Amino acid sequence: MMTQPNLHRASSLVNRHIVAFAGGVGGAKLAQGLAHILSPDELTIIVNTGDDFEHLGLYICPDLDTVCYTLAGLANPETGWGRMNETWNTIENVEGLGGPAWFRLGDQDIATHLERTRRLREGQSLSQITKDFCSSWGIQHTILPMSDKPVRTMVDTDEGELAFQEYFVHRHCEPIVKGFRFDGVEGAEPTPGAKEALDKADAIIVCPSNPWVSVDPILKVIRKIDKPVVAVSPIIGGKTVKGPAAKMFNELGIEPSALAVAEHYRNILTGFVLDNADSYLEDDVKKLDVQTLVTDTLMNHLTDRTRLAKDVLHFIGSL
Amino acid sequence: MMTQPNLHRASSLVNRHIVAFAGGVGGAKLAQGLAHILSPDELTIIVNTGDDFEHLGLYICPDLDTVCYTLAGLANPETGWGRMNETWNTIENVEGLGGPAWFRLGDQDIATHLERTRRLREGQSLSQITKDFCSSWGIQHTILPMSDKPVRTMVDTDEGELAFQEYFVHRHCEPIVKGFRFDGVEGAEPTPGAKEALDKADAIIVCPSNPWVSVDPILKVIRKIDKPVVAVSPIIGGKTVKGPAAKMFNELGIEPSALAVAEHYRNILTGFVLDNADSYLEDDVKKLDVQTLVTDTLMNHLTDRTRLAKDVLHFIGSL
Repeated sequence: MMTQPNLHRASSLVNRHIVAFAGGVGGAKLAQGLAHILSPDELTIIVNTGDDFEHLGLYICPDLDTVCYTLAGLANPETGWGRMNETWNTIENVEGLGGPAWFRLGDQDIATHLERTRRLREGQSLSQITKDFCSSWGIQHTILPMSDKPVRTMVDTDEGELAFQEYFVHRHCEPIVKGFRFDGVEGAEPTPGAKEALDKADAIIVCPSNPWVSVDPILKVIRKIDKPVVAVSPIIGGKTVKGPAAKMFNELGIEPSALAVAEHYRNILTGFVLDNADSYLEDDVKKLDVQTLVTDTLMNHLTDRTRLAKDVLHFIGSL
Repeated sequence: MMTQPNLHRASSLVNRHIVAFAGGVGGAKLAQGLAHILSPDELTIIVNTGDDFEHLGLYICPDLDTVCYTLAGLANPETGWGRMNETWNTIENVEGLGGPAWFRLGDQDIATHLERTRRLREGQSLSQITKDFCSSWGIQHTILPMSDKPVRTMVDTDEGELAFQEYFVHRHCEPIVKGFRFDGVEGAEPTPGAKEALDKADAIIVCPSNPWVSVDPILKVIRKIDKPVVAVSPIIGGKTVKGPAAKMFNELGIEPSALAVAEHYRNILTGFVLDNADSYLEDDVKKLDVQTLVTDTLMNHLTDRTRLAKDVLHFIGSL
C-alpha cells in the first residue's frame, strides 16, 4: 500500500491534518482510502483497543492488526481480518491437543501476537511496538492504539457480563445485549502522539465502525473533542455491512438506521455521511443540526475506499 | 507408532519393567525401539528437562518433545527434532518483525508450546500435560519429564555461564566448555510416577544421549539408583552421531571414547553397550567391573532401533 500524496488533494485544505478513529474491518477500509490520498504528515489513525484480549498467552489486538494489515496490503480480502495467503497449522494442532481453538489464529498472524507479547513483557509500550511493526510492514502513516493502557470492552448481556471477544467470537454475538462497560477506561490516557495529532487536526473522521464497541471506547479515552467531527454511517438500509452494530441497536431498543448512528454521535457531530440508500433520512439528520453528505459508502475495493475518502475530505473542506 | 507387545519378548524377563532415561535425538531413537518391543506396562521413559527454556513467551521442552514426536511417528526424519511436514510461517514473520528467530520453531511445533504454556499457567503440572499430549498423539507408553519443577542446565564456558539453549542453539556450541550446573536441581523431585516405575524396574537403560547435559540432569534428580543400569554409548569411534558430547569430553580434558562414557557412569553401571567399531575398548570397560555388549549401535531406521533395543534387552536378561 503506497501512498500517493498530492494527487487528489482537496484544494480547500492545505496544511491539513486529519485524525481518523477506526475500529476493525469497516474502519480499516476507510483508513486505507484516506492513506491513499493523504500523506503521512496529513493523517493519523487512532484505533480502538477495547477488544484487545489475552488468549493462549498471546496479547491480541484485533482492530489494530486489521488496520495495520489492511494498510500494509497484507489483509485477507475475503474475511477483512487476518492475513492473506494464511496457513492454520498452529491452531489446528492446538485444537488437536484439546486447546482452545475458537479464536482462529493463522500462522503468520500468530507471529504478530508472539512478538508483540514478548516486547510488552520486556516493558515496551503498545504504541512503540505498533510503530516498529508498521515500519517492518512498510506502512508510512501513523497508526496509534487509542491508549497504551489496557481498556477492556465488557458486554452486559442477558447471560451476564462477557468479555468482548467471548461475546463476539466465541458466542457469535448470540447473547442479547443490555449495555457496555469499558473496564480500565478511567485510568487510560490517550497514547503519546494522539494528543498532538488531535491538537493540530483540522477535523476528525469517525470511520464506519461499530459506534457501541469500536468508536465509543476511543471517544471515552480521548474524553474532550474540540474539532469538527464527521462520522460515516456503518449502517446502510438498516443493516450493517459486517458485525453486530444493527443487532446491538435493536437489542438496546433503538431502531437501527443511519439516523440512529447520527443521534448516537450528536453531541460531537459536525457532519454526517449517509449512504445513497438512506437519502430519505437526510432531513432528519439535518434536524440534529448536523450537515450531511449522501454518497455511496460501500467499500468493496480500493477504488471505492479511495473515492469515499475523497468525498469525505471534500465534505470536510466544505463545512 | 504402534507397539507390538509379546512378539519379541526376551524370554528371561517375564513381568519385566524397564525404565529408560532419554535426552533428545539419540535417546528418542532407542526409546522408540524399546516401545516397539515392550508393552506400555513394561516400559517407562524418563526424559531430561534440563534444556527446557522459556523463549518468545513459550515454555519449550526440546527433549521431551523430540521423544514424544518420535514415538508418535510425528518427528522430522531429517533433523531428528521438530515435526515432519513442518511449515515455518510464524517464525519467518517473527523474524520479519525483528524478533528472535535463532530458535527455529515450526508452525505445528509452536502449537505444542502454546498449549503447554497455557496449561502450565492454569496450574497443570508438566507431567499431567505430557500425559494428555501423549494421549492426543496416540502414544501408549508412559513418557515422563524427569521433574515437574524446572531444572535448568547452565554451561560454564570460557565466555562465562550460558543457559543451555543459548550455548547449544544460539552459539552453536562454540564456547569452550568448563563445566555444568543444574540450576534448581536441589529442590526438584522426580515426577510422580517416576519413583513407582523405578521401584518396580528390573533394570534401567541409559539411552545413547549426552552424558553431561542429557543424562546427568536425570541422574541428579533421581538421586539414588539401586537397580541394574545398562548404558548405551553415544560415542562411536571417538565421535558422537549428533550433538556436542565428544566436543565436551575434549574440552573437559578427557579423550572422547566409549570408554570415557563408561567411566563417566562407572558408579551406577552394571552393563555397557559399545559399538562394533569400539570393540577394542571392551576389555578396558570390563576392567571397570562392568559387563559389556558389543553390537551395531547406529540407529538410522526403525529396524535398527528395534534391533538395538532387542539386543539391549537380551543383554539385560543375561546379566
